[in-house]
Amino acid sequence: MAKFQRHVFVCTNERGPDDPRGSCTARGSAEVLEALRAQAHAAGLKRVVRVNKAGCLDQCAHGAALVVYPEAVWYGGVTPEDVGELVQAHLVGGRPVARLVIPDEELTGKVPDPKATP
Amino acid sequence: MAKFQRHVFVCTNERGPDDPRGSCTARGSAEVLEALRAQAHAAGLKRVVRVNKAGCLDQCAHGAALVVYPEAVWYGGVTPEDVGELVQAHLVGGRPVARLVIPDEELTGKVPDPKATP
Repeated sequence: MAKFQRHVFVCTNERGPDDPRGSCTARGSAEVLEALRAQAHAAGLKRVVRVNKAGCLDQCAHGAALVVYPEAVWYGGVTPEDVGELVQAHLVGGRPVARLVIPDEELTGKVPDPKATP
Repeated sequence: MAKFQRHVFVCTNERGPDDPRGSCTARGSAEVLEALRAQAHAAGLKRVVRVNKAGCLDQCAHGAALVVYPEAVWYGGVTPEDVGELVQAHLVGGRPVARLVIPDEELTGKVPDPKATP
């Protein structure tokens, strides 16, 4: 046994219908998750690639959002119709789908402060 | 803005009390998750390291289980008492805590089949 070759986390955060931020679930992430699981399995990736739901990935402006590790490729605005291309190009072929990638400068992470105590 | 420096996923899968596999939640993963969030934040890692809950990570024999990406270090049998060391050594210092790491040969991933259609 071994590490997964790739590990996909789909944001399945939910918010109330009046929340102005919306949520990935409101933008269809549950359907994206199910399509990813089914199509990754159909592509022979069982135990090679794992697809998990995750709590809020903090990319709410880009829902439905997901991330593929270990390469740390972030995708936004993903719909179930995109999943076939994601599976074949990226999960099988190793080539990220550029049109769906969230640019680094739009992600919410922060570069570590070099002055911070290590 | 940028990618997170590290992204931690804690298995928060739940199973019924009669399920022989147990679950990470039954082994205290919710408390591990909360301790990780609080202590990562206290260490100044807000938006540098993100800590998320995840669905079943398929390492049920090693609960409470979590994984740190992008380095893909898997931890098992983690308790809230381990969290201080995990945060300081790994999330701040970049040095995995060897005593808690799940060995590759005990993980449930599968090396890709080289004969599979690319």
